[in-house]
Amino acid sequence: MTETTPARHDFRLSIVCPDQHGIVARVAEAIAGTDGWITEAAQHTDAEAGWFFMRWVFALDPAREGELRDRLLHLGEDMRMDWVLADSRSRQRVVLMVSREGHCLSDLLARWNAGELPMDIPAILSNHTDHEPLARCYGIPFEHIPVPRDDRASAFAQLQERLDDLQPDTVVLARYMQILPPWMCERYPQRIINIHHSFLPSFSGARPYHQAHTRGVKLIGATSHYVTEELDAGPIIEQDVTRVRHDDSVQDMIRKGRDVERWVLARGLRYHLEGRVLTHGNKTVVFD
Amino acid sequence: MTETTPARHDFRLSIVCPDQHGIVARVAEAIAGTDGWITEAAQHTDAEAGWFFMRWVFALDPAREGELRDRLLHLGEDMRMDWVLADSRSRQRVVLMVSREGHCLSDLLARWNAGELPMDIPAILSNHTDHEPLARCYGIPFEHIPVPRDDRASAFAQLQERLDDLQPDTVVLARYMQILPPWMCERYPQRIINIHHSFLPSFSGARPYHQAHTRGVKLIGATSHYVTEELDAGPIIEQDVTRVRHDDSVQDMIRKGRDVERWVLARGLRYHLEGRVLTHGNKTVVFD
Amino acid sequence: MTETTPARHDFRLSIVCPDQHGIVARVAEAIAGTDGWITEAAQHTDAEAGWFFMRWVFALDPAREGELRDRLLHLGEDMRMDWVLADSRSRQRVVLMVSREGHCLSDLLARWNAGELPMDIPAILSNHTDHEPLARCYGIPFEHIPVPRDDRASAFAQLQERLDDLQPDTVVLARYMQILPPWMCERYPQRIINIHHSFLPSFSGARPYHQAHTRGVKLIGATSHYVTEELDAGPIIEQDVTRVRHDDSVQDMIRKGRDVERWVLARGLRYHLEGRVLTHGNKTVVFD
Amino acid sequence: MTETTPARHDFRLSIVCPDQHGIVARVAEAIAGTDGWITEAAQHTDAEAGWFFMRWVFALDPAREGELRDRLLHLGEDMRMDWVLADSRSRQRVVLMVSREGHCLSDLLARWNAGELPMDIPAILSNHTDHEPLARCYGIPFEHIPVPRDDRASAFAQLQERLDDLQPDTVVLARYMQILPPWMCERYPQRIINIHHSFLPSFSGARPYHQAHTRGVKLIGATSHYVTEELDAGPIIEQDVTRVRHDDSVQDMIRKGRDVERWVLARGLRYHLEGRVLTHGNKTVVFD
Repeated sequence: MTETTPARHDFRLSIVCPDQHGIVARVAEAIAGTDGWITEAAQHTDAEAGWFFMRWVFALDPAREGELRDRLLHLGEDMRMDWVLADSRSRQRVVLMVSREGHCLSDLLARWNAGELPMDIPAILSNHTDHEPLARCYGIPFEHIPVPRDDRASAFAQLQERLDDLQPDTVVLARYMQILPPWMCERYPQRIINIHHSFLPSFSGARPYHQAHTRGVKLIGATSHYVTEELDAGPIIEQDVTRVRHDDSVQDMIRKGRDVERWVLARGLRYHLEGRVLTHGNKTVVFD
Repeated sequence: MTETTPARHDFRLSIVCPDQHGIVARVAEAIAGTDGWITEAAQHTDAEAGWFFMRWVFALDPAREGELRDRLLHLGEDMRMDWVLADSRSRQRVVLMVSREGHCLSDLLARWNAGELPMDIPAILSNHTDHEPLARCYGIPFEHIPVPRDDRASAFAQLQERLDDLQPDTVVLARYMQILPPWMCERYPQRIINIHHSFLPSFSGARPYHQAHTRGVKLIGATSHYVTEELDAGPIIEQDVTRVRHDDSVQDMIRKGRDVERWVLARGLRYHLEGRVLTHGNKTVVFD
Repeated sequence: MTETTPARHDFRLSIVCPDQHGIVARVAEAIAGTDGWITEAAQHTDAEAGWFFMRWVFALDPAREGELRDRLLHLGEDMRMDWVLADSRSRQRVVLMVSREGHCLSDLLARWNAGELPMDIPAILSNHTDHEPLARCYGIPFEHIPVPRDDRASAFAQLQERLDDLQPDTVVLARYMQILPPWMCERYPQRIINIHHSFLPSFSGARPYHQAHTRGVKLIGATSHYVTEELDAGPIIEQDVTRVRHDDSVQDMIRKGRDVERWVLARGLRYHLEGRVLTHGNKTVVFD
Repeated sequence: MTETTPARHDFRLSIVCPDQHGIVARVAEAIAGTDGWITEAAQHTDAEAGWFFMRWVFALDPAREGELRDRLLHLGEDMRMDWVLADSRSRQRVVLMVSREGHCLSDLLARWNAGELPMDIPAILSNHTDHEPLARCYGIPFEHIPVPRDDRASAFAQLQERLDDLQPDTVVLARYMQILPPWMCERYPQRIINIHHSFLPSFSGARPYHQAHTRGVKLIGATSHYVTEELDAGPIIEQDVTRVRHDDSVQDMIRKGRDVERWVLARGLRYHLEGRVLTHGNKTVVFD
C-alpha cells in the first residue's frame, strides 16, 4: 500500500467473540467508514468452540480514531465482542525478571536494543545481583529483591509492591526460577510470560533437562506460555525443539537448550507485544 | 462453525487485484448478502507492488452460487479483480509425469489414496515403463511415451496430443527429468508443477546433488515451482532442506534428498489444489 | 577408500562393554591383524554409566572372517564385550504388521523397493484386509489375522505361531494399533519396533493427536522405539516433530503427523537394520 | 569414564593424512602406550579423495605429553600425517571484527561470558564506534579503525599492524561488511571465519536478503565459512535456514535472518575452537 495521506498510520484491531453471521462484513464496513485502509488481516474460526478470532492492521487517520471507537463500541455490544484497538506505535511497559541464568535476559536486551521488540523496560527485577552490570550497560534500572527460602511470602509482597509502582503491561519471567504465588498469577491474566525449558507437556517442573536425559529423548525443547496458577500448565504461546544425541551430556543439553529458550521466549514475547496472541480457554490463537 | 443449514457447503474465493480502498468491505458485503458464512480468510497486501491478494472460504447455499457470481462479476469489473470462485468439493484433473525415479510418484499416489490430495488422476505418463505396475496397483491408466534423444520433437508432439485428450487442469512433473519445450510451458501457465532437487536458486540444472557435494554445503534442499520457459526459474511454491554431513556421499545425498523432494512436491501440490497459491510476476503468495 | 583387493567387502562390528583401558587399540589391532581396512568408525563412552559403545565398518577379505571371529572371541571374553560381527551384505528378515492406517506401510514398501532398506519381507500381517492389494502389488505375502475384542488371547497365540514359522529378525509395528501381550514383547527384546504418533513422553497411550489438540501444543511429533512390556516406554530410537497452528484441526494434525510418522519410522528402521542402534538400559546409542 | 588419576586431563588429537592401512591401530597404540584413555573418537574416510580425517579426545597425564608427542612425530613422518595435539584446557586468542550490525557480536559476547566459547578476546576491532559501550560492558578493549572509501589500503595496513601486535589464533568477521584484501586472507588460512547472510552458494555478494526477496524463496539462510581470496567461496563450516513467507518484507527477512546468522556463526566458531573442523581442498570435515 502506498500511503496516500501522510497523516495516517497503522492501528491494529483484535476481536474475540462468538462466531456469528456477518462479522467480517460489519467490521470491514466500520473500518471503511472511517477511511481505514486494511494492510494485514488474519482471522480464525474455532468451529468446535463456536468462537471467532481476528486481528487486522489498517492505516487510519488518528483524528478519526475516536469515531472508529464509537462504531466498534456499538458493534461490540451488538455482537458480544471482546475487542482491542491499539495504535501500532504504542509500546508496552515490560518488566523483566531473572535469576542467575542470563542467556534469555541478554538475548531480549540485545533484541530490544536492535529495535526488534516494541517495548519499554522500566526495570529488571532479580533475586540475585549477577546481571546488574548487564542492565547498567543497557541503561535499565536493576532492582535486587532477594527471595529467601524461609521468607518467600514477604519477598513476594515486596515484589508486588514494586510491580504496583512500575505498572507493567506485561511481566516476563526470563528464567526467573521462582514459582510465583497464585494470587500474583491471578493479578496478571495473560500478562505474565514464562519460558519453561522443556517441550511441554513433557518434563514439567524441576530439572527438565535431567528428566530428558534420563528418558533418552532425541529432541529437547522449550515453551513460552502465559502463567496461570497451575505450574507450567498455562496457554502455550510458542514452542520449539533442537536435536540431541546419545553423546550429549546433561550439560550439553543445557547448552543446546539455551538456544531454544532464547528463540522461543523472544518469538513468544514479540507475538504478544504485537497483539498477535489471542486466548480462549487454555489455548492460544497466534497470528504469526 | 456449526452448520445450521445442511444445504450449505464450502466454497472458496480467491482474488488478485490492485490494492485499493474498501476491497474487504465490499467482498464481505457480497458474501454476507448471499448469506455466506466465512470460515477461513487470508489476505495479503504487497505494498511495494501495490497489489492485493486474498483467499476466503465460506459456507454457502449452492442455490445462491449464481447470485454470488453476479455480484462478484460487477465487483470484479469495478475493482479490476482476477477472481476464482470454486466449490471446495470440486476436484482438479491432474496428469502425473515421471521418468525412472519413482519416489515422488509413489508418495503422491499413497497420499491421493489416503484422501490427502483432492484430485482425479486420469493418467500417468512416462518416458519409461518402470512404474506401470505401481500405476496398475492404484488403478490408474499408465501411458508410455518414449522420448528418444534424436527425436524429441515428435515425442513432445505426441505428448501434447495426449494432453489435449486428457484435458488436465494441472500437470505434475514428478521427477520427469525431461525439459519441456517452451511452447508447451506457455500453454499451461501456472499449471505445470515441477520438483527440482535443489534449493533454488542454488544448483539449478543437471545433477544438483553432485554440485552440492562438490561445494560442500551442509544442507541440501528441494523446490517445487511452476514451470516457465526459463529452466528452473519459475515462481517457487515450496522449498525445504535437510542436513547433510561430510560423510554423506552423493548417493547418501540422493537418498536424503528424496525425502525432501517428496514433502516439497506433496505440500506444493496440495497448496495448488486447494487454491492456496496465487502468483504475481515471478513470485507466489501461498496461503498455507 | 579405493578397494585394492576385489575380494574384500564391508563388515561391521558393534561392541558394547564396560569402559576400560585400551579397547580401541586392541580392537584396531585385531582388525589390522586380519588386514581389515577401517572405513567408518563411531564410538561413545557413557561416562556416568561407565559403559563403552562402538560401531566400526571395515573392508575384509571374507576368507579371513573366521580368523577375526577367533580374535574377537578372545578379546570379548577378556574385556566382557557384547559384540556382533555382521557381513554388511546380509539382510534381516523383517515382518511388517499393520492395521487400517497404511501410510507407514506404503512408505516402507516404497523405500524397500527403492533399495533404501536392506531387508527381506517374508510377510505382512494385519488384523484387517485393507492393505492386501498393496502387498500384492509389491509381491509380498499378506496374512490376515483378525484380533476380535473378545478373543484377543487366541488371536495373539495364532500370531505367535505365524511368527514362529516366519522366523523374523525384526518385527515392525507400522501403525498396528494393537497392544501386544507382555510375553510376546519379552520374546523379541530390541527386535520389535513401534511407531507412536506423539513426541514421547508426551501423549502416550490412545488418541495422541486429540490430546495434543486439547493441550494446544505448537509442534506435534512421532517416536519410533523398541517395544517393551510397558506401553510406549521402551528405548527411543528416533523422534521428530512438525509445526502445527491454531487453525489445525485434529484431522489436520493427523494428516501432518502422518508425515512425521513416516520419516521417524523409516529412519529408525534403517538405523536398526544397519546396526546403528545399540542399547543400554532403557536408552539407545544411535550412530547415525 | 571415571577419572582414576586426578592428574590426567583431556587432550585432543586431530589428524589429516592419506588413507592407508592401520592408521587407527597405530594411533590407538601410541595413546594406549602413554596410558591415555580415549573418551571421544570420530573419524572419516573420504573414499573419493583417498584421504583420512580423525579427531580423538583422551585423558592423559600431562607429564606424558612429551612422550606422546615423540611417538606421534615418528608416526606422522611415517604416515605423512598433519596432526595437532592440543590440551583441551588451552584457549585460542580470538579477535572479533564488526561494523554497525551488532547482533552477532552481542550474541558471541553473551556466549563467551556464559562459558560456551573457549577463547580469550584480546580486542574487538571495528570501522565504527557503535559497539564500544557493549565491549566496555564485557571488559574487552575496543579499537576503532576507520576504513575510508578513498583510502582502504592504508586502513588495512593499519589493521594488519594491530593484528601483528594482537597475535590472534583466529579472526572472526562478525558482520564486518568489509572485503579484506587478498594478501590478508592468505596470511590467515583457515583462521578467518566470516558469517555470510545467505545460504551459499545462493545470493553471494551484496544485499543477499534483497536478492532472496526478489527471487521469492521460501527459506532464507546463513553460512559461516573460512575466508579465502575469492569472495564468499571459502570452505563452509556451518549453515542453517529459517522459513519466510510471502508477507515477509526485506526488513522482516533481515530480522529473521539475524537469528540464523547468530546460530550459524556461534556454532561454526565453537566447532572451530574445539578443533572439530578439518579441511581438505575447499571442503570441511566437521566432527560436531
